[in-house]
Amino acid sequence: MPFVRAHIRRGESRQYRQAILDNVYQALRETFNVPEEDQFMVVDEYDPDNFIFSKSYMNIARSDKFVLLQLTVSNTRSVEQKKALYLRIVERLAEQPGIRAEDIFINLVEVEKENWSFGHGLAQYAQ
Amino acid sequence: MPFVRAHIRRGESRQYRQAILDNVYQALRETFNVPEEDQFMVVDEYDPDNFIFSKSYMNIARSDKFVLLQLTVSNTRSVEQKKALYLRIVERLAEQPGIRAEDIFINLVEVEKENWSFGHGLAQYAQ
Amino acid sequence: MPFVRAHIRRGESRQYRQAILDNVYQALRETFNVPEEDQFMVVDEYDPDNFIFSKSYMNIARSDKFVLLQLTVSNTRSVEQKKALYLRIVERLAEQPGIRAEDIFINLVEVEKENWSFGHGLAQYAQ
Repeated sequence: MPFVRAHIRRGESRQYRQAILDNVYQALRETFNVPEEDQFMVVDEYDPDNFIFSKSYMNIARSDKFVLLQLTVSNTRSVEQKKALYLRIVERLAEQPGIRAEDIFINLVEVEKENWSFGHGLAQYAQ
Repeated sequence: MPFVRAHIRRGESRQYRQAILDNVYQALRETFNVPEEDQFMVVDEYDPDNFIFSKSYMNIARSDKFVLLQLTVSNTRSVEQKKALYLRIVERLAEQPGIRAEDIFINLVEVEKENWSFGHGLAQYAQ
Repeated sequence: MPFVRAHIRRGESRQYRQAILDNVYQALRETFNVPEEDQFMVVDEYDPDNFIFSKSYMNIARSDKFVLLQLTVSNTRSVEQKKALYLRIVERLAEQPGIRAEDIFINLVEVEKENWSFGHGLAQYAQ
């Protein structure tokens, strides 16, 4: 059920963008118990003047490869799981497509389980 | 106050996109007690490689007409109202513009009532 | 840590868009205790048929200069701080780039402090 939105600079290859999505999905599978096939994601590409990010906040040196990930997820994970997710995303994106740990920003938006409908107008996760 | 974001494949007609927005608005009016004229919506159109969705998750066969709706709303609705909203959106979009029930994904993000300002810098819904 | 998304009509100048982002950031600094350099923002530009907003809801006369701001923030601010933020954004945008108070819509999405990672895969705000 996570819905993932990746924000990046315009101009990266299809393979690069695909690698971001695939590895975020795999990190969610590994740390957030996301079921197989549960993959719903978009990439928003920005020209530089529509994508502003601090190049130094928290003494982290960000570059033009900066990726801002906003993940909407159910509110069922512990703080430890969240920390594990962040680390796993960073590890995986370092390998493919090769993004520095400094360039990965992650934000989780949490919602109730009944706040999802995967089709047919049903609330498949409601109790 | 709902803020609706519809994510679709690029290339649908203006009438098609208008029908999505109008019918989601009407479904909100019918099930979530949304006031008349309270309509704030965007459509984000995607090329295929920036819009990834499972074609089989939960045994639901999704097609290229897939629509992902993310609705930010106040946290004042019951689970029953949410279920009614999902069904009504699916019923309405089946009629106009003619979208299969399998192709409609809905996610609600809930916020406090004071988290909205409709103009003039006022929190019109705050108690 | 706020993540700011500004939605506007396509076609405004770079200076105009920059003034929106800069002044929202300054308003966050003044009312929400946001640290210096903590600036992460995008602008989404829309053609008219993909950006629907009521021109009269709540008897507020909106124009084509309408700006819809969605700010994801930590859930640590009081209602009074939220009201102060809305007013300050409206005051600042009236000065630069010169947007009417009627044309500014603000929505806050609140998340837990551990829901942010600013780089290195760490949850810098987690307790």
